[in-house]
Amino acid sequence: MTSTLVLLRHGESEWNAKNLFTGWVDVNLTGKGEAEARHGGKLLAEHDLLPDVVHTSLQRRAIRTAELSLDTCGRNWIPVKRSWRLNERHYGALQGKNKAETLEQYGEEQFMIWRRSYDTPPPPIAPDAEHSQVHDPRYASLPPELAPLTECLKDVKERMLPYWYDQIVPDLRAGRTVLVAAHGNSLRALVKHLDDISDEDISGLNIPTGMPLRYELDDAMRPVTRGGAYLDPEAAAEAAAAVAAQGRK
Amino acid sequence: MTSTLVLLRHGESEWNAKNLFTGWVDVNLTGKGEAEARHGGKLLAEHDLLPDVVHTSLQRRAIRTAELSLDTCGRNWIPVKRSWRLNERHYGALQGKNKAETLEQYGEEQFMIWRRSYDTPPPPIAPDAEHSQVHDPRYASLPPELAPLTECLKDVKERMLPYWYDQIVPDLRAGRTVLVAAHGNSLRALVKHLDDISDEDISGLNIPTGMPLRYELDDAMRPVTRGGAYLDPEAAAEAAAAVAAQGRK
Repeated sequence: MTSTLVLLRHGESEWNAKNLFTGWVDVNLTGKGEAEARHGGKLLAEHDLLPDVVHTSLQRRAIRTAELSLDTCGRNWIPVKRSWRLNERHYGALQGKNKAETLEQYGEEQFMIWRRSYDTPPPPIAPDAEHSQVHDPRYASLPPELAPLTECLKDVKERMLPYWYDQIVPDLRAGRTVLVAAHGNSLRALVKHLDDISDEDISGLNIPTGMPLRYELDDAMRPVTRGGAYLDPEAAAEAAAAVAAQGRK
Repeated sequence: MTSTLVLLRHGESEWNAKNLFTGWVDVNLTGKGEAEARHGGKLLAEHDLLPDVVHTSLQRRAIRTAELSLDTCGRNWIPVKRSWRLNERHYGALQGKNKAETLEQYGEEQFMIWRRSYDTPPPPIAPDAEHSQVHDPRYASLPPELAPLTECLKDVKERMLPYWYDQIVPDLRAGRTVLVAAHGNSLRALVKHLDDISDEDISGLNIPTGMPLRYELDDAMRPVTRGGAYLDPEAAAEAAAAVAAQGRK
């Protein structure tokens, strides 16, 4: 018997729409993002892929995406677990900056290193900067060495994996259909792990918003089919291409 | 040091608005109910009464009330726990029936026994009736002897208390501000326990929708001030009077 995992990246946020680097800044969904979340829930219902438990980050755009998609497929009553380990990549000093302006200011090469290099983080954010989360009550219980001031994708994978192994895998082992509602980069980190994607190739992987991605996992918690399957593959391919083009507007 | 407990009855539901007995039927909030939930969250923020953990029933009107109120006060990231033990009273064969028509059909005396008697439940619902929850997946893991076909308030208190003692009290003991987002009768059962209200007097107690009710509890988990305190006492008194008059339209 295989285990069923469904990944869902949050719908469009206020800062996606404004083309700003967001990271750990706690922006809300736009109306379009809410509609994407509900559409994701509709796809889950249509495919009879009803989650038994949901895991989210501590960020409201992922939390509301989980709430809206589960409300739409009639499953908002399932158990909820959350962790900062599923948060978006912390974007360091870039948080709050415009992507197009950053591209113009620093040039294509530096811009792409910050966006897509596996192991080079942007400069750290100043703890008292406007868009720092050092004083955010939701992270108050984290020892300071655990709360990032910047992250590369490698950092995200390292802090995400303990949650995968200790919280998500046990739910899968118990036979539950698990929904993970999270972010572009925390999901890329998970997919990199699941599909064993190289440090080089992961830069080309883009996960579209609001599109449920289903994985069937074997006993070793590895995909039966590499890459999983989007519930709506055509729409997902189009949307992934749009993500790849971000920053170039 | 005292422990802080906040009780919140869900906002107006589609069937409150239609004056139907609801019980375990999983109806949604109305637009007015959503606004009540958000207003409840605004009151929490204004009183700096920010929950550290939320407990809800398995019913969407309480779940969405929790989600909307917590979203409004910036706390939708806190841990969530749910249980059928916080569900509304199961209204038995009355579920789905109009309150005014039931009053007319059975007369004031029988109507008030069903609504307010402490230990007389309505007739049980037929398991395959339209408004039975016997086949609802959210209760599929309950052994049949646990899933009610009707309940009086005494039954609600008996099935609610284990959750109070085993799940809510430990959160209070840990120093957390606890929000319980639930229903008219599951909250009446809890208030009956907390304030040690007699079987006779509880019939006169009405809890208004969407109005946070704060209790400070001593070491014995009993209220420092009997009855607690509504964050907006005037609005709560008006609304409670309106609940008492229900059925008489």
